[in-house]
Amino acid sequence: MNIQVGIIMGSDSDLPVMQPAADILKEFNIPFELTIVSAHRTPQRLMDYASGAASRGLKVIIAGAGGAAHLPGMVASVTTLPVIGVPVKSSNSIDGWDSVLSILQMPSGVPVATVALNGGKNAGILAAQIIGSSDATVAQAIQTYKTNLQNEVLAKAEKLQVSFTNGFDK
Amino acid sequence: MNIQVGIIMGSDSDLPVMQPAADILKEFNIPFELTIVSAHRTPQRLMDYASGAASRGLKVIIAGAGGAAHLPGMVASVTTLPVIGVPVKSSNSIDGWDSVLSILQMPSGVPVATVALNGGKNAGILAAQIIGSSDATVAQAIQTYKTNLQNEVLAKAEKLQVSFTNGFDK
Amino acid sequence: MNIQVGIIMGSDSDLPVMQPAADILKEFNIPFELTIVSAHRTPQRLMDYASGAASRGLKVIIAGAGGAAHLPGMVASVTTLPVIGVPVKSSNSIDGWDSVLSILQMPSGVPVATVALNGGKNAGILAAQIIGSSDATVAQAIQTYKTNLQNEVLAKAEKLQVSFTNGFDK
Amino acid sequence: MNIQVGIIMGSDSDLPVMQPAADILKEFNIPFELTIVSAHRTPQRLMDYASGAASRGLKVIIAGAGGAAHLPGMVASVTTLPVIGVPVKSSNSIDGWDSVLSILQMPSGVPVATVALNGGKNAGILAAQIIGSSDATVAQAIQTYKTNLQNEVLAKAEKLQVSFTNGFDK
Amino acid sequence: MNIQVGIIMGSDSDLPVMQPAADILKEFNIPFELTIVSAHRTPQRLMDYASGAASRGLKVIIAGAGGAAHLPGMVASVTTLPVIGVPVKSSNSIDGWDSVLSILQMPSGVPVATVALNGGKNAGILAAQIIGSSDATVAQAIQTYKTNLQNEVLAKAEKLQVSFTNGFDK
Amino acid sequence: MNIQVGIIMGSDSDLPVMQPAADILKEFNIPFELTIVSAHRTPQRLMDYASGAASRGLKVIIAGAGGAAHLPGMVASVTTLPVIGVPVKSSNSIDGWDSVLSILQMPSGVPVATVALNGGKNAGILAAQIIGSSDATVAQAIQTYKTNLQNEVLAKAEKLQVSFTNGFDK
Amino acid sequence: MNIQVGIIMGSDSDLPVMQPAADILKEFNIPFELTIVSAHRTPQRLMDYASGAASRGLKVIIAGAGGAAHLPGMVASVTTLPVIGVPVKSSNSIDGWDSVLSILQMPSGVPVATVALNGGKNAGILAAQIIGSSDATVAQAIQTYKTNLQNEVLAKAEKLQVSFTNGFDK
Amino acid sequence: MNIQVGIIMGSDSDLPVMQPAADILKEFNIPFELTIVSAHRTPQRLMDYASGAASRGLKVIIAGAGGAAHLPGMVASVTTLPVIGVPVKSSNSIDGWDSVLSILQMPSGVPVATVALNGGKNAGILAAQIIGSSDATVAQAIQTYKTNLQNEVLAKAEKLQVSFTNGFDK
Repeated sequence: MNIQVGIIMGSDSDLPVMQPAADILKEFNIPFELTIVSAHRTPQRLMDYASGAASRGLKVIIAGAGGAAHLPGMVASVTTLPVIGVPVKSSNSIDGWDSVLSILQMPSGVPVATVALNGGKNAGILAAQIIGSSDATVAQAIQTYKTNLQNEVLAKAEKLQVSFTNGFDK
Repeated sequence: MNIQVGIIMGSDSDLPVMQPAADILKEFNIPFELTIVSAHRTPQRLMDYASGAASRGLKVIIAGAGGAAHLPGMVASVTTLPVIGVPVKSSNSIDGWDSVLSILQMPSGVPVATVALNGGKNAGILAAQIIGSSDATVAQAIQTYKTNLQNEVLAKAEKLQVSFTNGFDK
Repeated sequence: MNIQVGIIMGSDSDLPVMQPAADILKEFNIPFELTIVSAHRTPQRLMDYASGAASRGLKVIIAGAGGAAHLPGMVASVTTLPVIGVPVKSSNSIDGWDSVLSILQMPSGVPVATVALNGGKNAGILAAQIIGSSDATVAQAIQTYKTNLQNEVLAKAEKLQVSFTNGFDK
Repeated sequence: MNIQVGIIMGSDSDLPVMQPAADILKEFNIPFELTIVSAHRTPQRLMDYASGAASRGLKVIIAGAGGAAHLPGMVASVTTLPVIGVPVKSSNSIDGWDSVLSILQMPSGVPVATVALNGGKNAGILAAQIIGSSDATVAQAIQTYKTNLQNEVLAKAEKLQVSFTNGFDK
Repeated sequence: MNIQVGIIMGSDSDLPVMQPAADILKEFNIPFELTIVSAHRTPQRLMDYASGAASRGLKVIIAGAGGAAHLPGMVASVTTLPVIGVPVKSSNSIDGWDSVLSILQMPSGVPVATVALNGGKNAGILAAQIIGSSDATVAQAIQTYKTNLQNEVLAKAEKLQVSFTNGFDK
Repeated sequence: MNIQVGIIMGSDSDLPVMQPAADILKEFNIPFELTIVSAHRTPQRLMDYASGAASRGLKVIIAGAGGAAHLPGMVASVTTLPVIGVPVKSSNSIDGWDSVLSILQMPSGVPVATVALNGGKNAGILAAQIIGSSDATVAQAIQTYKTNLQNEVLAKAEKLQVSFTNGFDK
Repeated sequence: MNIQVGIIMGSDSDLPVMQPAADILKEFNIPFELTIVSAHRTPQRLMDYASGAASRGLKVIIAGAGGAAHLPGMVASVTTLPVIGVPVKSSNSIDGWDSVLSILQMPSGVPVATVALNGGKNAGILAAQIIGSSDATVAQAIQTYKTNLQNEVLAKAEKLQVSFTNGFDK
Repeated sequence: MNIQVGIIMGSDSDLPVMQPAADILKEFNIPFELTIVSAHRTPQRLMDYASGAASRGLKVIIAGAGGAAHLPGMVASVTTLPVIGVPVKSSNSIDGWDSVLSILQMPSGVPVATVALNGGKNAGILAAQIIGSSDATVAQAIQTYKTNLQNEVLAKAEKLQVSFTNGFDK
C-alpha cells in the first residue's frame, strides 16, 4: 500500500514532538514516511520533497519546526497537497510564539493547517481525518478513537467523582 | 452534486471574513453551504449541525469565530470530519490573540486546522486542498490557481523592477 | 442538604488546581460535587450536565480547563446559573495566555466569571460569596475568613518588622 | 424595593463601557445604583463605599476601571460581597492588557469575577445570574433572555443561509 | 536619626526580592523600616500606613507586590511622598506581566516610580538617589557606589579580554 | 531661582507627550528646563548633559523616548540624580512594548523611575514629589493638587449618580 | 558600476516600507536593484534569485515581508551574502509580532540581520554600513550622514529649548 | 593580521551566549577581540570603544546584552561600522522580550543588525558574511560551512528515515 502521509521536521531535535504523529498514524493503519527536511540547511531538498510529494502519491504532509519556522509554509508554497504545520517549542524560543506565528500567519493563497504548540499527535489525527474524509475505513477508525477518548474520560470521571453534603463524603 | 463543505460562523458580523471562503470554493466549483451557528447562543444547533455533518455528505467544515472562539473546537469535538478554524478579529478583541489561541490550542485528540487571523480565503483554499487530496479535478484546479498566483507576482515584479546604477534609473 | 456548587474540570490533570476550590467550600460548609466533564472529549456529557444543573438545585458552577479552554464558556451557554471559570496552565500551554483568553473573552450575552490563572481556591471563595449574597450564615463565614486572613498578615508583619536607624537593628 | 447591584467606575470616561451594565439590569428589573468611585483619586470614598455596601443591602458590586485598574480588587478586599470586575480599554492602555491583568490576577483569598475587556453588558448579566441563583423570577428572566438571543441567531441564520451546488445559489 | 524610607511588601513571600532594597540602604547608611502591608488582606492598614508616612518623617516609600499588584498604586493614592513600585514575579504570575502592568500603568495624577521586575535592589538605590537629590552626603555615597560598579566592570574586562589574531590567543 | 528639573526627550515628535510634564511643574512653580537630547543622534550631548546636570543644580531629570528608548537609561548611567523615564508610544512602535521594556528593565545598579506609557504628566508630578520630599512648600502644593483631584471626582460622581429602583430613576 | 544591493519584497504592498531603503542607497550613491520575490507564490524565483546573487556581484540583500515572513530567512538559507530582514506590519498582522518573530528567530547557522518593524530606511543604511566596512568612500558618506542627523537634532534642540524660572520663560 | 571584529558584552554573565561568536570566527580564521563594555556601568568606556573602533581597523562590532539592552544601540550611535546586536535572555528578563525589543526597535538613522535571542553563534556567522562580502576567502569559508551544515542534515535524515507501509517498518 502507498505512503499516504509524509512527516517531515526541521531537525532531529524535533523528533520527540513529531513521533506521536507517526504513532497515531500507525494506530490508524495509515502508511506514512518520516524524515528530516530543513528549510534553512537543505533548501533544495525542501523544494524537491515538496514538488515530488503529490506525484509520489502522498495525500497530506505534516511539517514540524521551531523558532522562525519556515518549513511548513515553504512546503505549502510548492505543493497543492494540504500541509499541516506543527509549531515546536525549541530551546531559545520566545515561549513558542515564534514558531506559532511563523507557521500560522501565512499570506492569502497559501494556507497551512496549524495545530497547537507541540501538537504532533493532533497533526497525525488531523491527517487521518483528511484521509478519512474520502475513506470510510479511516473515518470509522477515527470514530472509534473518539469513542474511546470519551470512555476514558467517563471512567476517570466515575473514579474521581466526589460529593460533599455537609461532611458526608462519598 | 452534494454539498461538500460547510461554512459556519458564530455571528453575521463574521461574514466579511468568511465570505471569501465561499467565493474561492465557488471559483473551484466545490458545492458548499454557509450559515450561522453560534456556540454560545445556539449550543444545541451546534451539536446538531456537527453530529449530522458527515452523514449529510460534508467532507470538511470551516468554522469562524472571534473572541473566546469555541465554535471550531466544539464542532471538532463532535464530528470526525476535518475542521478548519478561522480566528476572527472582532471588536473588543485583545488584538486577535483571544480568537487565535482559543482556536489553535486544542487538547490532544481533537485537532482544529487553524489558519491565519481573518484568513477566511485561506480556509476555503485549504478545504479545497483537502478535497483535492482525493479528487484529481480539484487538485488540478488548485494547481492552476497557484500558477496564476505566481504569474501575477511575476507580472508585478516586472512592472515594479528598478535598477539604479549611479543615477541611471531604468 | 442539597448540593449547591458543581466543580467540574476538563481532565484529571486539572485536579491539583481545582482541589483547593473543593477544600475551601468544605471549610465554608457548603455542599458541592466534583467531577470531570470534558468539553472536547465528552461534549454530550457537557450538554447534559449544564442543562440539568439548575433543576438539580445547583446555584453556581465552577469549571476549570487549560489550553483552548471551552468548558466554562460552553457550560455558560447552556445554563442560567453563574459560571466561574478557572484558567489552568497546562503543559504545552503558551504561558497560560491560551486558557486565560479562551475563558475570559466571552461574547456579549454569555458571561463567565473568570478568576486568576490556576486560581482554584479563589473560585471556591467566589462561589461562596455568590451563595453568601443571599445566605447570611455563609456571608458571616466569609467575613470570618477575611478577618483571619488579615490577622495572619498582621502576625507575619509583626514578626518580620525591621527598623534600621544607623546601625541599630531591632 | 432595595438597591441590589452597585455599579461603580473609576472615571466618567468609563461610562460608555459601563452604561450597558445598567441597561441590562433595568431590562431584568433589578434595582441598581451607578456612580463614580476612584481608587486612586478618592481612596477613602472607596473604603467607605465598599465597607458599607453589604449593610446597605447590595448583593453584588460591579466595578469597572482601565489601566492599572485597582478599583475592583480593592473593593473586593473590603467587602464580602461578590465583586465583578470590568477591564476597560482606556486611552494610553497597552492594548487592554494592563486592565485585564490588574483585575484578573488577584491573590489567593480575594477573588474578582472578571469579565471580558469592555464587557460592561456581560457584567450586568452576570450580576443578574448571581441574584437569579436565589431568586426564581430573575432566573426566569435570564432564561427568557437566553431564549431570545438564540432566536435572534436562528432568524439571522435563516436569512443568511446560502447553499451553492454547482452554480445554483439558493 | 529618623526613619527616611519605608519598605513594604504585600506578603512575606516577597522578602527575597525586597531584602536587597534594605541591604543597599544600610550600605548607604540611610535609616529605613521594613514590614508587610497587604493591599488586599489588610486594606485599612494600608490606608493607615500611607496616610501617616509623611508626618512620621518618611521621605520615600518602596512598595513591592506580585500578580494584580495594587499596593504601590494604592499607597501612592493616599500619600504625597514619592512611591517606588517593585513588580514581583510571584508563582502563578503570567510571566511577571501582571505585576509590571498593574504597577506601571497608573492613571494621570497618581504616579508610581516603577523599577524592573524583581528589582528590589534598584528600588533601594532609587530611594537613595531621591534622598541624595537634597542630601550631599548621600549623593556622594551614590557617586562612590557608581565608581565602584565601574571599577568592577573594568577589572572583569581586563580579566576576560581575549584577542585572536590568526591563532595567537592572549 | 535655580533650575531644578531637566526635561529632555529624544525627538521633537515626543513633545506632545512631554509638554504636560512642563505644564504641571509650572503649576507647582518648580523651575525647569526643557530640551532635546537624542541618545542615538547626539550621544556626546547626552554624556555632557547627564554629567553636568548635578553640578548645575538640577535635582531630577525627566527623560522621554520611544521605540528602543535608551535615553533615560543612558542618562541614569552617568548621573547620580534620580532619573524619571517616560515611555513614548511612537509610530512603528510595537504597541508601546518596546519603549516600556527598554526603559523599565534596567540592570542592577542603575535604576530608572519609569512611569506609564505616554505618562508625561505623571513624570512631572513624580518630579515634584521627589523635590517635595525635602521641600515643605512643594509637598503642600502636591497635597492641594491631590485634594483638587479628589474634589473633581466627587463633583462628577454627584452629577453622574443614578439609582434605579424599579422604574424610579433619580 | 555593478549593482551592489538587491532589495526584494514579498508583495508590491510592501513598497511603502521598502522604498526608503532604495532612497537612502541612492543618497549614498550605491547601485542597487529593487524587485518583487515572493517566498510563497514564487518559491523557484526565490531560489534562483538567492543562488545567483553573489555571482552577479551583489554584496548585500535586503528582504522585506509581512505576516509569516519567510522571504529573508529562505534567501539567507541559499546565499552566503549577508541578508537584512525588514519586518513589515501588514494588514491582518498580529500587531507586527508575526513578521518580527518569523524574521528574527532564525536557527543556528543561518542568520538574518533584522531591523525594526517597518524599518526599510534603516535596512538601507545598514546595507551601506556593510559596504562601507570595506569601502572608504561609503564609510565617509555615512559619517557625513550621521553628522547631519546630529546637526538637525541640535538645531531642533536650540529652537525648542525652554527654561522656566518662576515665571520667566525664555 | 588586524583585528577585524570586536565582540563586546555588557557583563561577564553574557559570556556563555557570546563565546560561540568567538568560536565560529576562530573557525573562519577571522581575527577578533572579545571584552566587556557595559553601557550602564562604564558609559565612557562605551563611547571610547565605539568611537575608536573604525580607526583601529575593526570592520564589524558584535554587541550582546540583556534586559534593557542599550549597548548595541549606543555603540551604533557612535560608530559608522555595522553593529550586530545579540539579545541575551538574562535572569529577571521578561521572557527575553526586553532585550529583543530594546535592541531591535532602533529609530530611523541608526540601525542595529539584530539576531535571534541568545544567537551569539549567528552573530559570528553574520559578521563573517559581512567581511566575506568583500573578501573572497571568507566567502568561500562560509560556503563550505553551509555545505557542511547541509551534509550533516542529510546524514541525519538518512539515519532517521522511517517508512511505514502497513506494518513493514524499515
